[in-house]
Amino acid sequence: MSDTIRVMVWNEGRHEKTNQKIAELYPEGIHGAIAKFLKTQPGMEVKTATLDEPDHGLTDDVLNNTDVIIWWGHMAHHDVRDDIVNKVYNRVLDGMGLICLHSAHFSKIFRKLMGTTCNLKWREIGEKERIWVIEPGHPIADGLGEYIELEHTEMYGERFDIPDPDTLVFISWFQGGEVFRSGCCYHRNKGKIFYFRPGHETYPIFYNADVLKVIANAVRWTAPVKGPQVSFGNKKPLEKVSEAYGGK
Amino acid sequence: MSDTIRVMVWNEGRHEKTNQKIAELYPEGIHGAIAKFLKTQPGMEVKTATLDEPDHGLTDDVLNNTDVIIWWGHMAHHDVRDDIVNKVYNRVLDGMGLICLHSAHFSKIFRKLMGTTCNLKWREIGEKERIWVIEPGHPIADGLGEYIELEHTEMYGERFDIPDPDTLVFISWFQGGEVFRSGCCYHRNKGKIFYFRPGHETYPIFYNADVLKVIANAVRWTAPVKGPQVSFGNKKPLEKVSEAYGGK
Amino acid sequence: MSDTIRVMVWNEGRHEKTNQKIAELYPEGIHGAIAKFLKTQPGMEVKTATLDEPDHGLTDDVLNNTDVIIWWGHMAHHDVRDDIVNKVYNRVLDGMGLICLHSAHFSKIFRKLMGTTCNLKWREIGEKERIWVIEPGHPIADGLGEYIELEHTEMYGERFDIPDPDTLVFISWFQGGEVFRSGCCYHRNKGKIFYFRPGHETYPIFYNADVLKVIANAVRWTAPVKGPQVSFGNKKPLEKVSEAYGGK
Amino acid sequence: MSDTIRVMVWNEGRHEKTNQKIAELYPEGIHGAIAKFLKTQPGMEVKTATLDEPDHGLTDDVLNNTDVIIWWGHMAHHDVRDDIVNKVYNRVLDGMGLICLHSAHFSKIFRKLMGTTCNLKWREIGEKERIWVIEPGHPIADGLGEYIELEHTEMYGERFDIPDPDTLVFISWFQGGEVFRSGCCYHRNKGKIFYFRPGHETYPIFYNADVLKVIANAVRWTAPVKGPQVSFGNKKPLEKVSEAYGGK
Repeated sequence: MSDTIRVMVWNEGRHEKTNQKIAELYPEGIHGAIAKFLKTQPGMEVKTATLDEPDHGLTDDVLNNTDVIIWWGHMAHHDVRDDIVNKVYNRVLDGMGLICLHSAHFSKIFRKLMGTTCNLKWREIGEKERIWVIEPGHPIADGLGEYIELEHTEMYGERFDIPDPDTLVFISWFQGGEVFRSGCCYHRNKGKIFYFRPGHETYPIFYNADVLKVIANAVRWTAPVKGPQVSFGNKKPLEKVSEAYGGK
Repeated sequence: MSDTIRVMVWNEGRHEKTNQKIAELYPEGIHGAIAKFLKTQPGMEVKTATLDEPDHGLTDDVLNNTDVIIWWGHMAHHDVRDDIVNKVYNRVLDGMGLICLHSAHFSKIFRKLMGTTCNLKWREIGEKERIWVIEPGHPIADGLGEYIELEHTEMYGERFDIPDPDTLVFISWFQGGEVFRSGCCYHRNKGKIFYFRPGHETYPIFYNADVLKVIANAVRWTAPVKGPQVSFGNKKPLEKVSEAYGGK
Repeated sequence: MSDTIRVMVWNEGRHEKTNQKIAELYPEGIHGAIAKFLKTQPGMEVKTATLDEPDHGLTDDVLNNTDVIIWWGHMAHHDVRDDIVNKVYNRVLDGMGLICLHSAHFSKIFRKLMGTTCNLKWREIGEKERIWVIEPGHPIADGLGEYIELEHTEMYGERFDIPDPDTLVFISWFQGGEVFRSGCCYHRNKGKIFYFRPGHETYPIFYNADVLKVIANAVRWTAPVKGPQVSFGNKKPLEKVSEAYGGK
Repeated sequence: MSDTIRVMVWNEGRHEKTNQKIAELYPEGIHGAIAKFLKTQPGMEVKTATLDEPDHGLTDDVLNNTDVIIWWGHMAHHDVRDDIVNKVYNRVLDGMGLICLHSAHFSKIFRKLMGTTCNLKWREIGEKERIWVIEPGHPIADGLGEYIELEHTEMYGERFDIPDPDTLVFISWFQGGEVFRSGCCYHRNKGKIFYFRPGHETYPIFYNADVLKVIANAVRWTAPVKGPQVSFGNKKPLEKVSEAYGGK
């Protein structure tokens, strides 16, 4: 790992092809909009891939040269091949950062890593959301005000069936009466995972300056560190164990 | 759910049949030893089941009438049918308590709920373990001293590839130089999970008074509560959302 | 500690004397309303005390015979004597449960135990609050629905300057646009602490069936367990340390 | 805050004056040894101060221009002035990082921020310690192996009376039979705190390459971010609250 963070923005990329409104809003896809912003950030090298490419664009070679993967999926979670999901899973446990956006709460990779259903309440009437910063000293909150306001968005509401986050950075308020844990940090073996709620594809969420700032911060937070090469399995004692205790 | 906790002690039950030493140590199986103790506890109704029974002894009817399941497995994790694992998984998320003992760290059900490999270091030379109480106000530490000492045991060492526990109750010291997070509490949706390290089958661990006390305490801690009936999916707003925001 | 939980409902008790509206709403004081309910619960022995009694009604004898203390304070936090606060503090660390209600976020005892300012945003226009259950398997959520609704209440909003709770049970939604971590569990040495937001004194919050249910559940959750007698200070080695390492 | 991290290494500095052995081991003080190393790190500007300077070397001007303070204290905790402790406390809550080393577990500033006694078991016979990495993806574990070994050290043992860390990075094994949570991360309002166990002053701990690496990593992890300017107190509603609910 060099000092440059190699980022892969992955998108299912189906909506952009089938829905005229989304195609107009994100002419280069949601992945394109996010990648375009991240390319302006110092120290990031940014690529994109989509579901319909061979191997979903996620070959061994690509994954082995990715430090942080950003995941967008919505209507085609089940079209993602299990063998690819397993490769991403192993890379995350080995240190690759994973950022799951909005409807990626229901992606195979997020559910497998969480161990829960990741189910939630939802509603799509374009109501207002206010995302409050709960942990103001966390690097993912860098550069933000006390809250982010999104005028029109899809609602996600609690109970959100996830493990209690290692750190909860954001909680959302919705006009219709719900709340949601919107920014959730997890350590999973050597990998770090960030779930970030805002969406979805019919609103210009991924042009919002604060939303993009959070994604860039999350790239830096989830980027791998050169921690120990963890080893498992049968080990000899590090200390002398007396024969009285069965030691040799 | 009545006030009585309906406990199922589940055991793979293979070692006891194939290994003379284990058969002598646990003539009624490890499940038998644990069940015998739990039957002495007020407010518990205790049953047992093993891998080689039809449906592993875990039919829908049995699972629907179980409040807490205790899981022992070691050499035959892969013989546990995936459809049964899925049923246990759904029951845990719906509130059934799960206590995983020792080598059940590698059971399908524990790995699925943790979302990680649950791998670790291990060694079997019969060395000494000292299990320190880290959270002395936790109900699982009820009735214990500052530590539990096991003269001869298998070693499990860090790095233990699990999510950071919601509450860490015990940390083990091993004579050979390792440490281990030995008592780990998790909330997963409506269910509570407790992992308890001590083992294994060639030592009289499950006759140790403190080990049994911890298991009984964990039964009480993981027992379901009558919390809310969680609902997911598309929901109407609870508050009036003005049309300006897309509301109707 | 017997099986009966000895509960002390402590109230500053000033508002009830000076404000006609509060006096009418809580003719026996907020402490009286809460105590009256708790006395209907099996296994609880309930007493009350107020600020203006000698030693605030919290003598050594009283504290030593209290399992769980419920704290209400608002306008007279600074009139609570530091030596009494220290006694309560020591009892909590030694296992006594502490439940801080609403404006007790600013009590000396809560701030001392949290180590932070416990500051927050607030507003008093009688708006609506909806308290969502976030951890549906937690004993404090026993018997609740998915949320508690309070038609008229004081608002408390994030950023709430507390340590990240060991378990977050409730998050509140407010009509005016804020969110709040409303049910927060903490272990502090042998003691357990629960902060519960709803209030305040000019609304009939403490007659609400769900609010009272939560308080009763919290009494059970914070009640002490007979965990280890923790010892500190200079200790001899439990294992032989070779002289090579300075051991004797 | 510029990109340079302004580090203050603070030392009580008494042992070095009164104990010949310590004076020889750390001729420029423990603060001098740590500062010397940190000055070799890119992006750090390092100063030192000691107890016996006016205002302990921690004037308003110094504190306002410090991003991370490293704290060493042992025999003279009570000589640290309360008004200075309060200034450091306010700066930490406002974002300044705090790293407490070894016997600083008993410093006024750490106890005030933790809200607990921070008591522990200890022994000084020069036994061996092995510090295991528990969270291998954490930036504080950057560049380490699976464990750090210290041949001769003072023992600190559990129960360590601290709040459950937000992240537990290290657990220590001691030859004499104890374990200890040796690397503990906390968020407290805008500030981040890291407690790191190894010590003490009669051993060459602060020349150990891994120990120094951890301290440098911790400086980077605790360094402030430009998070939101948190505001507290009475606030107007962000949303229209209908008069029916008391709004205006």
